[in-house]
Amino acid sequence: MKVISFVGYHNSGKTTLIEYLIENLGKTYKIAYLKHDPKGHAVFDKENSDSARILSLNHQSAILSKDTFVLYQKPKTVDEAIAFFKDYDLIILEGFKYMAFPKIKIGNIDEPLENIIYDYDGDKEALKRFVEGYINGI
Amino acid sequence: MKVISFVGYHNSGKTTLIEYLIENLGKTYKIAYLKHDPKGHAVFDKENSDSARILSLNHQSAILSKDTFVLYQKPKTVDEAIAFFKDYDLIILEGFKYMAFPKIKIGNIDEPLENIIYDYDGDKEALKRFVEGYINGI
Repeated sequence: MKVISFVGYHNSGKTTLIEYLIENLGKTYKIAYLKHDPKGHAVFDKENSDSARILSLNHQSAILSKDTFVLYQKPKTVDEAIAFFKDYDLIILEGFKYMAFPKIKIGNIDEPLENIIYDYDGDKEALKRFVEGYINGI
Repeated sequence: MKVISFVGYHNSGKTTLIEYLIENLGKTYKIAYLKHDPKGHAVFDKENSDSARILSLNHQSAILSKDTFVLYQKPKTVDEAIAFFKDYDLIILEGFKYMAFPKIKIGNIDEPLENIIYDYDGDKEALKRFVEGYINGI
């Protein structure tokens, strides 16, 4: 299991690049995606909907929907959340800017960040080759 | 593991009763909640948000949020979704009206339904006692 974190400001193009990597490497490798949302911006189901009320009780709950199985659990630590995907080839992280994970930097960032292993220069193909090498420990 | 399905029309009070049971029995028993949403009414994260775009690629993804760890997976069969909670004392189902699970009927229902084991008459305490007995195989 390899872990890599995408860092970059809002609208720097992180999501588009992650989509590109999942689309192009996801058939060959088992790729998981984990987003950190420490301020709780994400909205789960419609606010005040029946399911949102039950989910807020914070027990183990799930929705088996047409296209997705969604499971809601109590918050985990970052390590526990990552360990959940231990059988995957690669976990792509987003939103863990100040943690020590190896990072791919997207766009300009006006602050020093630890452990940047790739500075994206706009060449998607080259990034894909880098990530594939990273998965394979090259 | 016991499974019970709550059936009743929209606004019949199912959610309030399920909340009541989770609040009152959830400290003693491990209770999971599984909602069936075959038409895909539930909304997961804001539409067209960055995470919604990645989730729609349907790979294994998760959001570690302030109050919840939310995991998105490919749709499962109903049996697989239930098996996910096999270590629980009780799985409360909602939205599986036409399946053969044992049912608690809430309010009037104008159609014949299989396997109704409790017809709720407005007495929450009595329902709680019934469900606790059901968990314990009484």
